[in-house]
Formats: sequence, C-alpha cells, structure tokens
Amino acid sequence: MSRREVLAAGMAAAGAASAAEALAQQAEGQPLLGDPALPEVPGQRMRWAIVGLGTFAVGQVIPGFADARHSRMTAFVSGNPEKARDLGARYGVSRFYDYENFDDIAQDDEIDCVYIVLPVGLHAEYTIRALEAGKHVLCEKPMCNTVEEAEAMVAAAEAANRQLGVAYRVHFEPNNLDAQRRIAAGELGTMRFISADHGFSADPNWPPHKWRLEKLLAGGGSMFDIGIYGMNTSLMMLPGDRVVSVSGTYSTPAGDDRFTEVEGAIEYRLRMASGISIQGSSSYCYSPYVSRQRYFGSTGSIEMRPATTYYDNSIELEAGGAPRTFRAGNPISQFSAQLDGFSQAARTNTPHRTPGAMGLRDMRLIEALYASADQGGAVVEVDIPV
Amino acid sequence: MSRREVLAAGMAAAGAASAAEALAQQAEGQPLLGDPALPEVPGQRMRWAIVGLGTFAVGQVIPGFADARHSRMTAFVSGNPEKARDLGARYGVSRFYDYENFDDIAQDDEIDCVYIVLPVGLHAEYTIRALEAGKHVLCEKPMCNTVEEAEAMVAAAEAANRQLGVAYRVHFEPNNLDAQRRIAAGELGTMRFISADHGFSADPNWPPHKWRLEKLLAGGGSMFDIGIYGMNTSLMMLPGDRVVSVSGTYSTPAGDDRFTEVEGAIEYRLRMASGISIQGSSSYCYSPYVSRQRYFGSTGSIEMRPATTYYDNSIELEAGGAPRTFRAGNPISQFSAQLDGFSQAARTNTPHRTPGAMGLRDMRLIEALYASADQGGAVVEVDIPV
Amino acid sequence: MSRREVLAAGMAAAGAASAAEALAQQAEGQPLLGDPALPEVPGQRMRWAIVGLGTFAVGQVIPGFADARHSRMTAFVSGNPEKARDLGARYGVSRFYDYENFDDIAQDDEIDCVYIVLPVGLHAEYTIRALEAGKHVLCEKPMCNTVEEAEAMVAAAEAANRQLGVAYRVHFEPNNLDAQRRIAAGELGTMRFISADHGFSADPNWPPHKWRLEKLLAGGGSMFDIGIYGMNTSLMMLPGDRVVSVSGTYSTPAGDDRFTEVEGAIEYRLRMASGISIQGSSSYCYSPYVSRQRYFGSTGSIEMRPATTYYDNSIELEAGGAPRTFRAGNPISQFSAQLDGFSQAARTNTPHRTPGAMGLRDMRLIEALYASADQGGAVVEVDIPV
Amino acid sequence: MSRREVLAAGMAAAGAASAAEALAQQAEGQPLLGDPALPEVPGQRMRWAIVGLGTFAVGQVIPGFADARHSRMTAFVSGNPEKARDLGARYGVSRFYDYENFDDIAQDDEIDCVYIVLPVGLHAEYTIRALEAGKHVLCEKPMCNTVEEAEAMVAAAEAANRQLGVAYRVHFEPNNLDAQRRIAAGELGTMRFISADHGFSADPNWPPHKWRLEKLLAGGGSMFDIGIYGMNTSLMMLPGDRVVSVSGTYSTPAGDDRFTEVEGAIEYRLRMASGISIQGSSSYCYSPYVSRQRYFGSTGSIEMRPATTYYDNSIELEAGGAPRTFRAGNPISQFSAQLDGFSQAARTNTPHRTPGAMGLRDMRLIEALYASADQGGAVVEVDIPV
Repeated sequence: MSRREVLAAGMAAAGAASAAEALAQQAEGQPLLGDPALPEVPGQRMRWAIVGLGTFAVGQVIPGFADARHSRMTAFVSGNPEKARDLGARYGVSRFYDYENFDDIAQDDEIDCVYIVLPVGLHAEYTIRALEAGKHVLCEKPMCNTVEEAEAMVAAAEAANRQLGVAYRVHFEPNNLDAQRRIAAGELGTMRFISADHGFSADPNWPPHKWRLEKLLAGGGSMFDIGIYGMNTSLMMLPGDRVVSVSGTYSTPAGDDRFTEVEGAIEYRLRMASGISIQGSSSYCYSPYVSRQRYFGSTGSIEMRPATTYYDNSIELEAGGAPRTFRAGNPISQFSAQLDGFSQAARTNTPHRTPGAMGLRDMRLIEALYASADQGGAVVEVDIPV
Repeated sequence: MSRREVLAAGMAAAGAASAAEALAQQAEGQPLLGDPALPEVPGQRMRWAIVGLGTFAVGQVIPGFADARHSRMTAFVSGNPEKARDLGARYGVSRFYDYENFDDIAQDDEIDCVYIVLPVGLHAEYTIRALEAGKHVLCEKPMCNTVEEAEAMVAAAEAANRQLGVAYRVHFEPNNLDAQRRIAAGELGTMRFISADHGFSADPNWPPHKWRLEKLLAGGGSMFDIGIYGMNTSLMMLPGDRVVSVSGTYSTPAGDDRFTEVEGAIEYRLRMASGISIQGSSSYCYSPYVSRQRYFGSTGSIEMRPATTYYDNSIELEAGGAPRTFRAGNPISQFSAQLDGFSQAARTNTPHRTPGAMGLRDMRLIEALYASADQGGAVVEVDIPV
Repeated sequence: MSRREVLAAGMAAAGAASAAEALAQQAEGQPLLGDPALPEVPGQRMRWAIVGLGTFAVGQVIPGFADARHSRMTAFVSGNPEKARDLGARYGVSRFYDYENFDDIAQDDEIDCVYIVLPVGLHAEYTIRALEAGKHVLCEKPMCNTVEEAEAMVAAAEAANRQLGVAYRVHFEPNNLDAQRRIAAGELGTMRFISADHGFSADPNWPPHKWRLEKLLAGGGSMFDIGIYGMNTSLMMLPGDRVVSVSGTYSTPAGDDRFTEVEGAIEYRLRMASGISIQGSSSYCYSPYVSRQRYFGSTGSIEMRPATTYYDNSIELEAGGAPRTFRAGNPISQFSAQLDGFSQAARTNTPHRTPGAMGLRDMRLIEALYASADQGGAVVEVDIPV
Repeated sequence: MSRREVLAAGMAAAGAASAAEALAQQAEGQPLLGDPALPEVPGQRMRWAIVGLGTFAVGQVIPGFADARHSRMTAFVSGNPEKARDLGARYGVSRFYDYENFDDIAQDDEIDCVYIVLPVGLHAEYTIRALEAGKHVLCEKPMCNTVEEAEAMVAAAEAANRQLGVAYRVHFEPNNLDAQRRIAAGELGTMRFISADHGFSADPNWPPHKWRLEKLLAGGGSMFDIGIYGMNTSLMMLPGDRVVSVSGTYSTPAGDDRFTEVEGAIEYRLRMASGISIQGSSSYCYSPYVSRQRYFGSTGSIEMRPATTYYDNSIELEAGGAPRTFRAGNPISQFSAQLDGFSQAARTNTPHRTPGAMGLRDMRLIEALYASADQGGAVVEVDIPV
C-alpha cells in the first residue's frame, strides 16, 4: 500500500488538506490577543541589569527570566568579565558593567530595573548608587547590614522617585499566597498562634555559605539569612497587626568555630498588638534543611512543610474534616512572578508588593531581637506595624 | 455425595483424625510457657481500685485493663453507687467504696494499687489518703494544683513506703518510645531545638471540659491540662539535662468569657543547661485538636503529628535521605502498658517510670512559667533537673 | 505546713468531702445503663469454643475477646493439652477438648459458638461436626478446599438450623465499613472500576506459612490465602451486582521450589453484570506486604493503602477538592467486632454479615479463576450474584 | 548621617569598592565555561518548527522552550495566521507556514526539527510530509491512527535518513527516570507485577476533548489518549522483555452518548515473556484525574501517584524499612528535557530515546488489545519486543 493509500484510509473520504483546515479552525480557534498568561512582546518588557553573578544569580535569578512575561535581561554587572560575557552569549545579554564603571548605568537607556544579588554587606551601597543612577532597584534579602543602612536606602529611593523592593520571593510563591488568601478569608477562624522553624547546616568550606559567616559581609547570622523567612512569612499572614515586643535567645552551640562572628542559632517570640504570638527558631545547625510554618486558628490550622523552598512547598489545611493537602501546580513561578511583579511596579512607579519599607521593618525587628538575646531573652518593647 | 465422601475427597487418603493430629503438632507446637507477651494468670496479677468513674475512667482507663497482662480491677470508688455497680457487673468488679468510706480500703487485702481519676483539685487529698491506707497510687496528670500539694504527695509516698506514679501515658506510648530510643541512639546527631504545640477548643457546656475551666478543680488552665503534654514529652527526650530558665506569655483571647479563672492560651520557652531551648504553645482555643512535637538535631529531625493522642501517633524521621514514616503496629497499648508498668513497680516496690518526683518537677516548671507570664514574659531563672 | 493545711489551701473554703461529692455528681453523672458501647455482663454473653491454638488463634483471635462486649471464651479445643491448659489459666477458660473427643461438645451447655481456626484443609470436617453438635460456627477464611466442601458445610448448617459464618473480618473493619458507606452514599458517583493487589513473601521455613504451601492443607495457593481479601473486599463494595465472567493468569516464578503444589501468584479480572471490572493480583512473591484497594468512580475515588491489615488501614478520598485521609480511631476493633457480630447472629439465629453462602460464592469464583488460568487466561463465564 | 557615613559604618575600615572586588572574586569565581547545565548559545541550538497551535502547543510545548538549553523555535505552522503572528511576536518567532504551503519548509534552512502537535488523525500525513521535506520529526503521542500509518511513518524516516521520535515525555520526566534507574539497579529485587490505572472525565463540550471522541481525528478512545501512558510507562520499566499475549475488556458505560465512535473505558492485561503481567485500566469516565503506576517486586515496591502528570509526580519506595517519598526538585523539566533530547538526537542523527519504532510497537499492542476486547476478552497472542 502506498503512502497515499494509507493516508486515504486514515482520513477517509475527506481530503486531508480540508480536514486539517477544519481542525485548525477547531483546535487553534481560541482567542489569544491580550491573554494575560502569555508573555509580553520582548521589546515592550521591562529591562533588567543583574548585579553580581554568584551561585544564586546564575542558578535561580537568571533562569527565572525564562518564564517571566514582562521582564527581560539586558545587562550584567560583574567583577568577572569572562563569566559575564559567557553568560551574556547564552542568555542574549550584550551590555556589561563592572564595579568600577557601575555608575555609568545612569546613561544606559536599555536598563529600567536593577537586581542587586551581591553579598548583604554590599546591598546598601549598590542599591543607593543604582537609585541615584535613576533605576528602580530590587535588592536581595536580607536588605542590608543595619537599620541605618536600611533607612538610607529607603530615603534614597524616595529622593530618586524610584521604586525599591526587597526580594522576599515568598510573597510571590503560589502556595504561600494560597495560605494568605485562606487566612484572610477566615478559613482558620481567628488566628491564635504562629510557629516558624527554619534552618540548615552551614558549610564554612562552600563559598556560598562561607561569606554568610562573616559579619561584615552577611550583616548577621542565621536570623539574617534563613530565620528571616520565618519572621517575614509569618507577618505576611497578619496584615494590619503590630509587633509590640520581641524576645529571643541564642542557641549557638558552644565551641562551634563556625560562629565566631555571627550567631549560629536563635529562638524568638514576637508579641502582636492583636494579642497573639509568633514563635520561631532559626539555625545554621539543623540538618536536613528545615522550612516549616504553622498557623493555628480558632477553627482551623495550616501546616506548610516545607514552606519556603524553591519548588516543593505545599499546604496542609485542617478545618472542618479530614486534613487536605494543596500543592500549587507549577511551582517554579515564584522567581518569575517576583520579577514580573517588580517590573509592573517599576513601569507604573507604584510600590512593589514587598517594598523597601518592609525590609526596613524586618531590620528593626532583628535588631530588637538581637538586643533581647544579648540580654539573655529579656523582653524588648517595640511598636512596629506589619 | 455424602458428607463422608466429601470429606474423604478433601482429605484424600490420609484419615482426617490423624491429619488433624499432625497439624495440631505442627501448627500448635510453639512453646508458650513464660511467654512475656501473654497475660499473667489473673490470680497473680496486681489488683487495682479505680477512684472516680467519669468520662475518662469509663472511656479509657477501665477498657485499658482488657489488654493489660499484669493488672486487673477489683474495686471501684465512686459517689454514684448505681453507676459503680452497673460497671462492676460488666467488668467483674465486686468491691465498692464511696468518698465517705474511702479510707476503709486500708483493710481491703484485694487492693494493691489505686488509680486516682478525679478532677485535679482532688488529686492531692485522695492520693495522700490512699498512700496512708498503704496502697500504691497512680495519679492522673496533672499531678495536683500546686507545688506544695505535690511536695506533700511525694512526702506521703515516702512516709508510707509506697510507690507514687503520675499517669504520663506518653512514656508508655510506642511511637514516643521509638522517638526516645532513636534520639538516644544519636539518629538526629546532637539535639538542637524542640518545638511543641498542643491544644484544643474547650467547650464550657460539656461536663468533661467544664471543670477544667474552674481554678479550684483544675489547678490551672490549658498549660495544666494539655500544654503539659508538650513540656513533659519534650523533657522525656532530654535525659540528664536541666532547665535553667523559663519564660512565657499569655495569649488568652481578650473578652473570651470561658477564661475568667484560668488561662486560655500560653506560649513558653524553656532554656536548658545543654544550651538548647524548648519552645511551645498550649491553648484551649485551637481547633481542630493540635498535638505536635518536633525534634531538630544536627543531622536529623523527627516530627510527630499527632504526637500524644490515644491511637494515631506516628513518627516522621528525616535523616540521611528521604523522610520515612513509622507507626507502631498496635496503638492501643499505651493505656494497658502504663497499668502494667505501674503494677510491676508496685510489685517490686521500685520507682515507676514516671514517678511522683516527675510530677513535682512539672508543677515547679509550670509555676515558674506562670510567674513569667504574669510579668509579661520576663525570664525566670530556675535550676530543675530533668 | 501540715497535710491538712496544704489541702485546705488547695480546696479553699469548701470542705474537700463535699466538693468531692459535688464533683462525683458532676463528673460521674452521665447515665450508663444500656449504653451499647459498654460490655455486656459476662454471664449473659455468648460463649465460645476456640478450635485450634496456632499462631493466629493465640496472636489475634483470643486477644480479640478482651475488647468484645457480647462474647466470652469458655472452651479450647487443641491437640496440645499443655498449651491449652496454660492458655486457659491465663484467659479464664476451664473447659478443654481435643480432636478425639471433639464431638462431646454437643453435651456441653457452656458452648454456644465454635470458632474454627484450623488449617484450611480441616475446615469442612470440623465445621460440619460442630454444626452437627448443635453449635453455631464461625469458620476462618478461606472457607475450605473445594466448592463441594463448601456446599456440604452450608447444607450442614441448614440441616442443623444453626448459623454458619466465614471470618471475613474486613466486613467489621471500620475503615472498610467507612468506604462501603461512602460508596453506597454515592460519594464516588457511579463505580467505574476496582483494582486490588494483595500479597506477601511466603517463607517455607516458618510454620504458619509452611502449611499454606501444601495443597491438602491449604486448599490452594496465594489466591486462597491473601488474594481472597482483594476479591471479597471488592465485592463488598458492589452489593446487588453479579459476576458474569472471570479470567486469570498465573505468574508463579519459574523454578521457585516453594510452589510445587499451589500457585505462587495469579492475576485476575472479574466482569460484573453492571458492566464494570475488578482487576487484581495475588502473590506469595511480593515484599514488603502489599494490601491495596482502589475504587474509581465517575466523580470520586478511594484508595486504601493498606486496606486489609490488622491495625493500620486508612481511606484516601478524592472527590470534589483536595484528597482527604480518614483513619478510624481505634483500629483494633475488627477482631472484637466480628466476634460480637457473630454472637448476635447466633443469639437471634439470623444470618451473620458474612455467612456460609458468601464463603461458597468465593469458592466458586476461585474455582472458575483457576479454570481460566489453567487455560492460559481464557474467559470463563459464570453467573454468581454478589 | 550622610550616605557616605552610613556606608562607612557598614563596611567599616575596608573601602567598599575593594571589598566588592574581593567579593566578586569570591562569590563570582566559580568556572562556568562548558557547564552542561547552562543553556547553549542561541545561535548554535537546534531550530524547531511547531506544527499546530492548539491548547497543548500554546500551554505546554511552546513554554517548554523557555527552559530548553539546546533548542529554540524559529517557525510556526498554523491555519490561524493571526494567532501565529501574535505568538510569534511574543516568542521571537518570525517564520510562518500554513497547511497549504507546509511543504515549503523543505527550502527553509532555519528549520532543523518539526514538532507535530496536530490531532492524531493528522499525525501520519504531516509527519511524512515533514520527513520528506528533510526535517527531523517529533510527533505527539499517540503516534497515529493505525499500525499501517505507523509503519509508513517509520519507513518514511528511514527513506529520508532523518530521526522520527514520538513525544512520550514520561521518558524525560525525572521521577519516572528515577523509578527506571532504581528498578534497573535491583532496588525492588525481581519485578513481579505492574499495575497501571489512568483516566479522566472527557468533556464533549470542551474543544481539546471534543476531537478525542471522534474516531477519524483521535484514532481510538481512552486507550489511545490516556491509557497509553500506563502501557508505555510500564514497558519503560521492563527493558529487554517481550509481550507474548494481550487481553482486554471494554467498560464503556452503557448509554453514555459521548462514546458512539470510540471506547470510553477499557481494562487490559499484558503477559510478558519473563512470566509477569501488566494489568491496567484506561478510562474517559474517571474523575478526578487518575494517573497511577505501581511496581511490585520480590524485595520492594514503588508507587507513583500521580505518575505521569505535568508537574506533581513522585515516587514512594518501600524496600527494607519504612516507605520513603522522593520528588524530583524541579518538576517542569520533562517538556524541556524532551525537546533537548530530540535536538541532540537530530544533531547527531542517532535514534531518539522514544523513537518511531516505539510508537509503532504501541500501535500494535493497542490494535491487539482492541481485537481482544472486541471478542469479550479472549487472549490474543503476540510477539512484540519491548
């Protein structure tokens, strides 16, 4: 049987061509124009410069642009020109800066947004320089080393009339957004208590961990790096509340020589104006990786375990019946969604979902927490709105 | 076909009788004598009086004797003679006392052990009277209303040369024993932190909950009743350690009129001499029921969720690979095992696994915790060995 | 402070005695008489003889009486008199028979029910002898070796006007009853398909497994012993349907010398008059233990994994939202509930929930299945109501 | 405090610039060149034409290119030019064809590979035309309508000396690859049995489902569309084995007017030369979505639930201890990995992991299965290597 005969058998009397046309009409007929789920035409997207090409930038931030719909990369800033050019070739980025000529980005019209992915100790300087260059800035968490730096960063954004965001990606993670929505909708009744435990085992011989153990570069210890997820995510679920006091204690293991400059472990309690508490722990001494949030309400509870990882978060809801587990379909989207969220904030010059002010708030809370722990857990009163 | 023919077909040439004999030899041949898994001959078991025939006694304690191997009931003490006699007929118990003639048990040779299942406010009095009557006493948790009562109970046991136990059934629950064994064996490396959340929603209209809201009868609030599971179970995993300070805060909902006498909710932190902390919450305002323990170590972690319920506890272990869930086969045994454990302690007049001293320790810890919470969370230093 | 002072402090103004009385009234006040959850007075319960004291009898059947409410043991029948007397002393059983004088039970008024726990090849003979002795008989599963034996057993029960039950304990297991109830209530919509896989690894050197590999004693292979759970439990969910055809294939591993007399593994498909199929597998070559049932419906599905074990079954329901897991509170009850169920059937001389006729049905199905497998999987038509 | 002062405080004595340089060296220092995890330079990647812009193409295939490293799109073939141009603008695709001028791709040097994403009834024609145009072709599953079509497609690839692949994405899904690796490594011992259930509820009013119910366009019913996942994935775990017989039965609900042309539901059994069976079900009448694979071995078992979905698959392994759940980190990769896998096959002109021959094999198996079901489940002997 010839190919023509086979096809004739397959497509029967109908000529293949006209059947295909009919099918095209049928299967391809849905409207597309303006579909918000589709990527924007590249030439219209916001243009980003990435500052710092370390492990996190190469492994998470840059790949996150692949699925972004309103954001594209146009420039790399790096002290390693060979690496920058290699990555540029792979990702279609052709504009390069280093830490010497960084301020020249002010003259570069192909950059709208700057993403600071440097070690924490450099966040303040480069954020402020980028804002002064007239760019919108998304700065990695934690925001910076001190409350004073954070205040200066916020002031710089205001002076420049540009948006400053802190990259709290959890606010764009679909499972956490689902928890936030359920809590706001009253699925747990009244919130009664939040528990948050986060940590991992810091490896002083691995470069991405090594600088986290140096105070000048990291700003602080486990609370700065990993505990901040617990605190920030917990507060994400309590809009409109205020922190009225803080207490904490260190549990850094005695004699562990990783922790000569920053704390290895800390426990904390935040008291809220609404009368409830958040209790958590943060550690560079847990293994395997810990990332757990629990929300206990008057009529239901949510457990997230893990809660704040890159891909594998989920919600377990107990409320009126057997527990149910929810897992958002496509878990990669938090990185891309964060980029697009900031692009839209920058485009409209309106505040990002996790603005500089939120980063400043967290710096104040951690500062109070360290003050308490330095006094062995004494209650430190504050008045910090969520 | 006649029945004989059928059987002949089934059993073939071999005569059924001799086959049965052969089978009896084969299938029934394992030795039994002295098998510790089998129940002891009733006449040799320790004999118990149950004091108080409320919901918990009828629903859990008394049925627990069905599967006990070294314990049997011989007497009921109750203010409701009709109920006592009805239960007696059903369970083969024929000796009855009331709260007036209770001290007459001293003359009753058919009672070795007394189980106090009264409201907390009566524990001290009836425990001491039973000890003075020469009986060994297992007292329900929490032990009593105050540290002073606990001290008097321990002193009475010593004076009478009888065993006093507090019914911390979790120490006989197979999943918690498995966790204890794994932790002691170093499966988590060095313990770094413990988190413990426990609670339920107290219903003031349900008699078994109603008395728990009255200070005179309950001794305290949620911490006395449900939070104590978290604290006691956490300490069960830290043998040889000491509590060096305690802090706590109340989260009793403002305006909730269930809580005019006792606290509705409390958070706590215990600092240990080993340098680690236990953080927990206890609430009469959670729903659904919360019973969660987590143990975070340097190389592994255990999550128990639920941790301390009657039937459904399990362990999830994360250490060196994917998480694994373990669930003890026959979960009913904690009630029966506790009875048998105390029977053996009484028989040999050696300390029970959860002795009066442990109950006294917990009363001291809760007293310190309340003192801290009364001061808004101030650190209260103690020196209390586990 | 004296003991009196301590107590006075604890109980305040109220005299302890009157407080205790008040409490007794409050905490002990619920009515009891006639509460169906409480055990019946022993003298009124149905009285059982246990025939065969092998591993399963000693490990599961006899302990099951501890929590039974309408059943008690009065006699043991065994070829091992020493073992019988030892167990008798422990469990309060004082009447003993052996396989020689077994028929004398006809003259024993202290026996109402007889539980046959012998190897399968002896079921028919001892069941019929017990029925002829005027006793009601609960016979372990599988019912017997052949359809002819099963027919003779059913006929003997009819002739004696006594109840005959087959010990399909799953019909008394709370999680399976929950599945049955949900399916009947339409929670899955219309049933579409059932999948059932069951098996374990038979150990020819362990006595309780050894006789299962001998055709004369076991009747058949894995399908008789473990696959029958899958088939019987699946049919439990399809009341009113009929089996219209059966097909099966053997997967006994070539050269596995455990399986010279009985099949090691078999797969089966049952076609129902309603148009749906049940597909399952049964194996003596799986490890670890497999016990899985799945029910797929037009609007929901249930997965039970494990489905038919002694203690640890659960239901996972997917219907209209995220999956939910249900686990019955006290999982030990299937053994006790089965005893009490049969006691009630015997007392009222009405059919047991899993009567002899159900055992006969299953023998017919397995016979047809073996006939199909002997022909390499050819469809064997039957007409057997559920 | 001025910005300079703030920064000076933050960075202490070290000048910020030199610290940044040091950090760049430290954090950006890892080598990159040749890292296989990074995307290839776009100009060197294989270039793809997508044929058919329906729901699956727009929702899964096209977005899959975002994370591909060796593949990029250069052309769209569609009967809807407006849609094609809109998508082209968004994704940087500027070459367009329709079903009339499709054969002109032969002259287009910017196309290396063609992905056929049309309804099944058009697969054969467009695959053969693309091969005749000198392009490598990845064809969506199922391969085509009939064995004869499949044979013609394979012959056309051979004649053209081009690669033909069938888009069995599961062979690139990390969790299934993990299962395949574990099984090959003997983690389950010897394979004993495979169970596979797959299905969903077909909605005749939803365009992407509608054509699946028409025989001319879909080729067959649920087995063609969804059951094929179960059969193909099961065989993926049995390399080197042969199918020796097939049997199946239809369970299409009587009177369901969705199924006038194709079967709604079918059950199947494949017997393998190794002596084991695969049993499965396939249905357009299950809800919610069912995708379950289980592998039972002599020393272990794997359950995948779901097994073959886009994002949420996982493995539960039971072997030597408590069950363990494994979930691949970044679950989006199966679409991208498949594209890159075929790009490499095309670049080197060596067979794809799931070649046309595999699609032909599956067409033969389904044809035999339908033949069996047409005869009520009779065994149909075949001899088809995996």
